[in-house]
Amino acid sequence: RPGRVPRPAMANEAGISQEVVVESAPASLLRGLGDSDGGMKAKFEKMIRSGQDEICAAVEALDGAKFREDSWTREGGGGGISRVLQDGNVWEKAGCSVSVVYGTMPPEAYRVATGATDNGKSGGEGRVPFFAAGISSVMHPRNPFAPTMHFNYRYFETEPWGDFPAQWWFGGGTDITPSYIDAEDLAHFHGTYKRVCDAHDPEFHPRFKKWCDEYFEIKHRGERRGLGGIFFDDLNDRDPELLFDFAKDCVAHVVPAYLPLVEKHKGDAFTEAQKEWQQLRRGRYVEFNLVYDRGTTFGLKTAGRIESILMSLPLTARWEYCNEPEAGSPEADLLDACRNPREWV
Amino acid sequence: RPGRVPRPAMANEAGISQEVVVESAPASLLRGLGDSDGGMKAKFEKMIRSGQDEICAAVEALDGAKFREDSWTREGGGGGISRVLQDGNVWEKAGCSVSVVYGTMPPEAYRVATGATDNGKSGGEGRVPFFAAGISSVMHPRNPFAPTMHFNYRYFETEPWGDFPAQWWFGGGTDITPSYIDAEDLAHFHGTYKRVCDAHDPEFHPRFKKWCDEYFEIKHRGERRGLGGIFFDDLNDRDPELLFDFAKDCVAHVVPAYLPLVEKHKGDAFTEAQKEWQQLRRGRYVEFNLVYDRGTTFGLKTAGRIESILMSLPLTARWEYCNEPEAGSPEADLLDACRNPREWV
Repeated sequence: RPGRVPRPAMANEAGISQEVVVESAPASLLRGLGDSDGGMKAKFEKMIRSGQDEICAAVEALDGAKFREDSWTREGGGGGISRVLQDGNVWEKAGCSVSVVYGTMPPEAYRVATGATDNGKSGGEGRVPFFAAGISSVMHPRNPFAPTMHFNYRYFETEPWGDFPAQWWFGGGTDITPSYIDAEDLAHFHGTYKRVCDAHDPEFHPRFKKWCDEYFEIKHRGERRGLGGIFFDDLNDRDPELLFDFAKDCVAHVVPAYLPLVEKHKGDAFTEAQKEWQQLRRGRYVEFNLVYDRGTTFGLKTAGRIESILMSLPLTARWEYCNEPEAGSPEADLLDACRNPREWV
Repeated sequence: RPGRVPRPAMANEAGISQEVVVESAPASLLRGLGDSDGGMKAKFEKMIRSGQDEICAAVEALDGAKFREDSWTREGGGGGISRVLQDGNVWEKAGCSVSVVYGTMPPEAYRVATGATDNGKSGGEGRVPFFAAGISSVMHPRNPFAPTMHFNYRYFETEPWGDFPAQWWFGGGTDITPSYIDAEDLAHFHGTYKRVCDAHDPEFHPRFKKWCDEYFEIKHRGERRGLGGIFFDDLNDRDPELLFDFAKDCVAHVVPAYLPLVEKHKGDAFTEAQKEWQQLRRGRYVEFNLVYDRGTTFGLKTAGRIESILMSLPLTARWEYCNEPEAGSPEADLLDACRNPREWV
């Protein structure tokens, strides 16, 4: 595959070199990167890679089909492992990837990312070197009663720049996008992440639940793409070890929070109209990801590996003109919950 | 319908008031707007409205199904007529709308739109009043051998602002998005618009054909969404009457340039794999429109009537991970032409 696809003109703007497909994933994607941060880079990579293995194994066991794996590295350092299960028995499309990226970001991006505008400090010359590692996943089941689920956990570092010291932060979240409301499912999913949050800080869940409802808004529609979960970003307000443990715990709870819901609904009977409603909601998912999602829009602008960035998109989606569900229907109830976020636990 | 959909928070940012659905379209959407420009506003509205009538009548005659019409006005002035034929016999979704919008734009948008940065002139205080009228259409046929077609013609005015005088310009274009190359079809479509251009200025076609190939690039993929046509913007380099005549001629040639292609292919036999390829190309169409198209992204940001803005999206679309057509196949040929624009006449 390398060399067959033209490299978009903007691909070098982020100082990220072209990816090269490799036979199999190396033991570490860090490739000799320094450990000035006490090993967090290596530790985070290890955590997301074993998370990817465990989650993919659980999904394969439920689906019966296997993930395809593509590994790639970059000359400048870093790389990734993309895994996609397409046209499965239970999932239409399920992707779960890890990546490690080094590059340089323009000062404006740095300022936005770190809030580096305060106290009269000024930045240095030129671009700011950064490191980012993350695990990212979206799973779209076939059955309209089985919800779509997304999660992403990432660790970010920037090098010292002008008057600003080196910075680091964690970000991530897990959220759910059903086409139909099943209150029991939602209590299970949100309850699982509430328990995870509460074990680390009782303030986490209310704060991250609200952040999630705000982040996933499709602003031009005044509705969320789904029914939330947790979301956080720029988190660096305590010992990085504590935040690492929290992120690790979140990754470890993807399977118990989500898979029972798919197991429960994978064989549900459904009508053509219910399938079309699911497809319409998938259209909303596409709208959110292409227009608002930070990871996707950043990836498109920096011309990362496009197939990995867009593997979050559903296999199929639908847009009907002026579709408005009948008042009092289950479809209208879902839409109302997307417009007015609710408490589920 | 009015009042049922929550108005997105950002809806007032463009100084555009909420649309109100009306029983039927008023004779003019201008509603007493002044005629300081020698009647161009009224003349342009008349042209796009009769263009809409003619094109919709021709499409209905070929399809057998009827367009649904929604008319709306705004308290502050302006309004629109949206027509959509969904789930037709020949077209999956065909939309053709006219709109007249008045509002105010922020200085930055004005500078981008008019290039108002030169000669040491400075702008005035606050926002800049503008007027925009246009016709816009996208038609997605069912048969994978019948191409999708888009056109849009618009007239724009801004009021005097600081040191800058009142400004006006024309923009627009017609372009085609086949899933399979039929050289005869492409010679007919591009040839028709070449003749239209040549009748007005022999420099128009080479310039607007190239502009079209550049404009419709999906930058993150290094490929165009389709096989081009003509595109122009900010055109004000001659008597507005001459540019009006050109725009009118372009609208008048939508039917002869496009409908014969659909007539020819509407009954072609096709396989499931060919239908899936069409759906993948529709996915690319969605990517372009949501990420790059100026009209769509402007509309989403200013919270115009969302159903009208997004009626350009196909009824259904598809995203497969790492789809790459077999070398030498008709699908690979189409993709190559999207990556490396060709001459068709």
